[in-house]
Amino acid sequence: MIRVGIVGGTGYTGVELLRLLVGHPNVTLHAITSRGEAGTPVAQLFPSLRGRVDLAFSHPDEAPLDACDVVFFATPNGIAMHEAPKLLAKGVRVIDLAADFRLRDVAVWERWYGMRHASPEWVAKAVYGLPELFRDEIRTAQLVANPGCYPTAVQLGLAPLVKAQVVRCEGLIADCKSGVSGAGRKAEVHTLFAEASDNFKAYGVAGHRHQPEIVQGLARLAGTDVELTFVPHLTPMIRGIHATLYAELTTEVDLQALYETFYREEPFVDVLPSGAHPETRSVRAANLCRIAVHRPGNGRRVVVLSVIDNLVKGAAGQAVQNMNLMFGLPETTGLMQVPVSP
Amino acid sequence: MIRVGIVGGTGYTGVELLRLLVGHPNVTLHAITSRGEAGTPVAQLFPSLRGRVDLAFSHPDEAPLDACDVVFFATPNGIAMHEAPKLLAKGVRVIDLAADFRLRDVAVWERWYGMRHASPEWVAKAVYGLPELFRDEIRTAQLVANPGCYPTAVQLGLAPLVKAQVVRCEGLIADCKSGVSGAGRKAEVHTLFAEASDNFKAYGVAGHRHQPEIVQGLARLAGTDVELTFVPHLTPMIRGIHATLYAELTTEVDLQALYETFYREEPFVDVLPSGAHPETRSVRAANLCRIAVHRPGNGRRVVVLSVIDNLVKGAAGQAVQNMNLMFGLPETTGLMQVPVSP
Amino acid sequence: MIRVGIVGGTGYTGVELLRLLVGHPNVTLHAITSRGEAGTPVAQLFPSLRGRVDLAFSHPDEAPLDACDVVFFATPNGIAMHEAPKLLAKGVRVIDLAADFRLRDVAVWERWYGMRHASPEWVAKAVYGLPELFRDEIRTAQLVANPGCYPTAVQLGLAPLVKAQVVRCEGLIADCKSGVSGAGRKAEVHTLFAEASDNFKAYGVAGHRHQPEIVQGLARLAGTDVELTFVPHLTPMIRGIHATLYAELTTEVDLQALYETFYREEPFVDVLPSGAHPETRSVRAANLCRIAVHRPGNGRRVVVLSVIDNLVKGAAGQAVQNMNLMFGLPETTGLMQVPVSP
Amino acid sequence: MIRVGIVGGTGYTGVELLRLLVGHPNVTLHAITSRGEAGTPVAQLFPSLRGRVDLAFSHPDEAPLDACDVVFFATPNGIAMHEAPKLLAKGVRVIDLAADFRLRDVAVWERWYGMRHASPEWVAKAVYGLPELFRDEIRTAQLVANPGCYPTAVQLGLAPLVKAQVVRCEGLIADCKSGVSGAGRKAEVHTLFAEASDNFKAYGVAGHRHQPEIVQGLARLAGTDVELTFVPHLTPMIRGIHATLYAELTTEVDLQALYETFYREEPFVDVLPSGAHPETRSVRAANLCRIAVHRPGNGRRVVVLSVIDNLVKGAAGQAVQNMNLMFGLPETTGLMQVPVSP
Repeated sequence: MIRVGIVGGTGYTGVELLRLLVGHPNVTLHAITSRGEAGTPVAQLFPSLRGRVDLAFSHPDEAPLDACDVVFFATPNGIAMHEAPKLLAKGVRVIDLAADFRLRDVAVWERWYGMRHASPEWVAKAVYGLPELFRDEIRTAQLVANPGCYPTAVQLGLAPLVKAQVVRCEGLIADCKSGVSGAGRKAEVHTLFAEASDNFKAYGVAGHRHQPEIVQGLARLAGTDVELTFVPHLTPMIRGIHATLYAELTTEVDLQALYETFYREEPFVDVLPSGAHPETRSVRAANLCRIAVHRPGNGRRVVVLSVIDNLVKGAAGQAVQNMNLMFGLPETTGLMQVPVSP
Repeated sequence: MIRVGIVGGTGYTGVELLRLLVGHPNVTLHAITSRGEAGTPVAQLFPSLRGRVDLAFSHPDEAPLDACDVVFFATPNGIAMHEAPKLLAKGVRVIDLAADFRLRDVAVWERWYGMRHASPEWVAKAVYGLPELFRDEIRTAQLVANPGCYPTAVQLGLAPLVKAQVVRCEGLIADCKSGVSGAGRKAEVHTLFAEASDNFKAYGVAGHRHQPEIVQGLARLAGTDVELTFVPHLTPMIRGIHATLYAELTTEVDLQALYETFYREEPFVDVLPSGAHPETRSVRAANLCRIAVHRPGNGRRVVVLSVIDNLVKGAAGQAVQNMNLMFGLPETTGLMQVPVSP
Repeated sequence: MIRVGIVGGTGYTGVELLRLLVGHPNVTLHAITSRGEAGTPVAQLFPSLRGRVDLAFSHPDEAPLDACDVVFFATPNGIAMHEAPKLLAKGVRVIDLAADFRLRDVAVWERWYGMRHASPEWVAKAVYGLPELFRDEIRTAQLVANPGCYPTAVQLGLAPLVKAQVVRCEGLIADCKSGVSGAGRKAEVHTLFAEASDNFKAYGVAGHRHQPEIVQGLARLAGTDVELTFVPHLTPMIRGIHATLYAELTTEVDLQALYETFYREEPFVDVLPSGAHPETRSVRAANLCRIAVHRPGNGRRVVVLSVIDNLVKGAAGQAVQNMNLMFGLPETTGLMQVPVSP
Repeated sequence: MIRVGIVGGTGYTGVELLRLLVGHPNVTLHAITSRGEAGTPVAQLFPSLRGRVDLAFSHPDEAPLDACDVVFFATPNGIAMHEAPKLLAKGVRVIDLAADFRLRDVAVWERWYGMRHASPEWVAKAVYGLPELFRDEIRTAQLVANPGCYPTAVQLGLAPLVKAQVVRCEGLIADCKSGVSGAGRKAEVHTLFAEASDNFKAYGVAGHRHQPEIVQGLARLAGTDVELTFVPHLTPMIRGIHATLYAELTTEVDLQALYETFYREEPFVDVLPSGAHPETRSVRAANLCRIAVHRPGNGRRVVVLSVIDNLVKGAAGQAVQNMNLMFGLPETTGLMQVPVSP
């Protein structure tokens, strides 16, 4: 059994990790920490876990995290870079669901995240945890930087095109729509029900932290520079990301075959038949990415539709998938939940 | 392995049964029928099941239902009473998720459902499938009448009071709120998103078919007549039933202890601590009923709050629970999904 | 023209008052105050008012409120009792949309609101602003206590029964459902979209501040004590209150005629035909209460369904209606908005 | 007073027209027709109009439409082309809210709408009713083709760029998101609450009827061919369209000044400050288009955000605006409703 710790388990990523780990056959929950909720039983804060999680939140300073085999950081950005190195030094493996180790270029990271990086040496050693693209590195990683929700949907959607070098690498567009849980469980006016319901808006058009993360991943696949316009939107739904991706073909190619071949062996990526329109609910609560490729009017423009559940394949599910790889388990262990629909 | 058939698998109850049965370790799906969708792959109609269900819908006349160990009817009311007897005659066990066998009094049934009953002889033999109240009969039943969604929430909420004879059996009130999936997957104007969203209304105040079903069950528990006002409401959420139940105490009693004792051994009923307010999302997609008991101002009035997911404990999950009992499996087999929240 | 001031215009009641006053032909907006947003243009905080409101928020200490003919307090509870007396002393008329002057019994108020009342002398002079029941007093009032949202829906729903003394005054039940805007524009976790959407729950079952307010009003109408169980619920919609009211008849009466007669002359109360189920959206954004009366199975139990928009007839619209009465304008002036549906 | 008739008043466009016309000071409602609801009082079908509309639906063959000054067609596509010519021949002016007269090229129309056009001669005479672009022609038109909802948001969003010839006219992208009321009041499975809520999907990526309408309008403004990729999405909200528009600059230009100048005199188009993100709710229930222009990273890519209420500026409100122009009234008459927010 893998002894698991969770740091910062009071947000949506934390409760989703718990939902998945509770049903995982090779895991025992060893510790969950929260500064603000220390002493509170987990199931009191999250009644959905009543009868399934007996632990209480521990204070981070008192939790037996170094006795864990793996620790998930479900903390705000800027925590793991301070706390993880101590655990890593003791041989504990770490999966960070925040952004601390996602960008290889520390200067770029510091610009976007507005703070000084506390452990640049670990940035260099961290592995970017998108298993479909970087599976082999993940297996042996001690520190995994779990990708952001938008970056997962966009990179999986564009990877086949970019890798095959069949589209222009300038002029890529990712028009993305996210459910409100993507904004986290912080009390803020703009994500109140009365503000976000029956409403739709873009945000961060001038620049969003997930843009450099996406560009870094695509550039690595392309072997060349990539230029991407990224526009996120807030959608009145709890979960789900829908990425509508635009690229310009530079050569003739059978797009459907390209995608089906690229993802043929992948248990968590589903290429839909030609002409399909994936719905976010078709992956609700499941560790899946569903993709459809279109070429309207048979022109040069490719339109890719890519959907994930932001809390599962976009966060906690992907983290468990990474854990499975890191511990030599079958990749699908504990992750075969059927999507909840309707 | 239990060979399972499903008749009428194109509604929400059908797809939810499939979600649960796909993950059930003792089941093989043998046949799914649909008159309208014969030939269509199940996963084409329900993309959430892509990669998990390989079957196509069969025409009911051609499906190998009599080779099944158990057949679920997820059909509109009035179908199972015609089709089930043939299967029952061949020894197939049947769980009807519609209302055909729920009311013992055929005349009452015919009045509420507006049709002549086609197999009154099977009404007499059917067992009402509310395991927490009638577990022993279910184990040996050949035909189980799976309860309605409202009746499940209301009967589980009121059972301890009525059984203990601590409340007046006249003047009971069940003010119930249901998610829109309770109305089924039929195309109707009043359940369109643009009609039902950001809106709330009562319906059927003059009389609703679930009222006699509830009264029948409570009267059996009480051993006396029961008089209940039942008012259902349509709520802008996909899943969930919230029953707010009002009764008048006739004697002093420790309500919290009464409920905790009554449901102590039940894996699927959770009595919350005194003062709690269960939320429908705390049981979303799970086979659970959560209950809280209140006595405002310490007066004679008891207020019970009871929540279920109408498609799980109120339909498909309860049906699988009944199947487990009928086939001697541990009752929780395949039903330990953690609620999806948020 | 009536010079109008608004104290505390940054919540939902404030922006709704602005929406209504902007279109009112006899009003000029003279000042809007906010401690936190002083200096911010109103239309910057509320883009829906761009091009319609040119004012900026003033600091309360600097706003020319005493030059107003009437000042609306759209503040949290406990502010108006401190600030209004100064204005009242200068002859300014005041309409308080908070609870400070709603309860005649100061001791009861202090118990429910958990603070010492700062101006009990004004409690005695305040008029309860439910025009359909207390119109004449409102005309000459200097200080109007605008009713709460739940109390408006419940009192209008039960008034004909209680006034006519045809029901038992004990054992009344008000099972009420409110949209999330009723919780205000404060940043709180439980009203986040990801918490409140696709969810339903009761709250405050042990006791809610609107209960004594309702009881006070009904007792006055009944001329006797009234005993009421009040259970509020949070509903995943932005606006709307649906009150489902239960009472027990003590005599034979033509309920439909009783209600139609009671409200015959009322421009803002609509008694639906027998058998109807009012929907909250049928009053969305309008100053209306729609009511239907039921008597299931022709028994002794009466079920009344009463719907309002909590921000209009339950708050800002009713306040404007009171202002019209106080200033001798036709009561419907500026309040004939047609409900927005769908 | 303008005598107004409405043909086909049972859909969302119809009820919204009624909401606006009821409050219009220069209009009397003369007739509303419906084949299916003939004889039904309008306020019975739409309870939001109780007390405001006394008319019943007439059968189209019996309605006194030729005694009207103007008749609105709020019918499905393909009706007005048959019925309008008779009225036009008698001098009645017609505003068609469907698509029958929107495309100048009858062959293109027939291809997209899959039927033979019944009155091509009137196509040539029809005026495209987008007042901000074609105001002068509308004043004298006898037949106005009211634009589609998507085309209104997209054309208003791109017009300044295209007219000023500062962007490439190939490679335009309109990524559009619509509320579910845009799909109309037809009973269909995919727009049921339980299907469309908490869900997001694209549709019609292979081709959508609004694409040629948009291209026709933009090409006329540009004076050259235009090539546009148009991807519509279904969003879980009742009302609202959000168009996210992508274009490539060909020259340096002050975008903010360009837009502010272009729309300086327009009462119904609001150009937001630089950096803003318009929300659909900021125009809810109002005849407004709000636009913001962005240039991420100061590159060549322009991103325009354009929002309308699909039922108002995207349908009924624009139709009334056109009527005002046609009858020499101030353009804003009856259209100054303040957006409903929250």
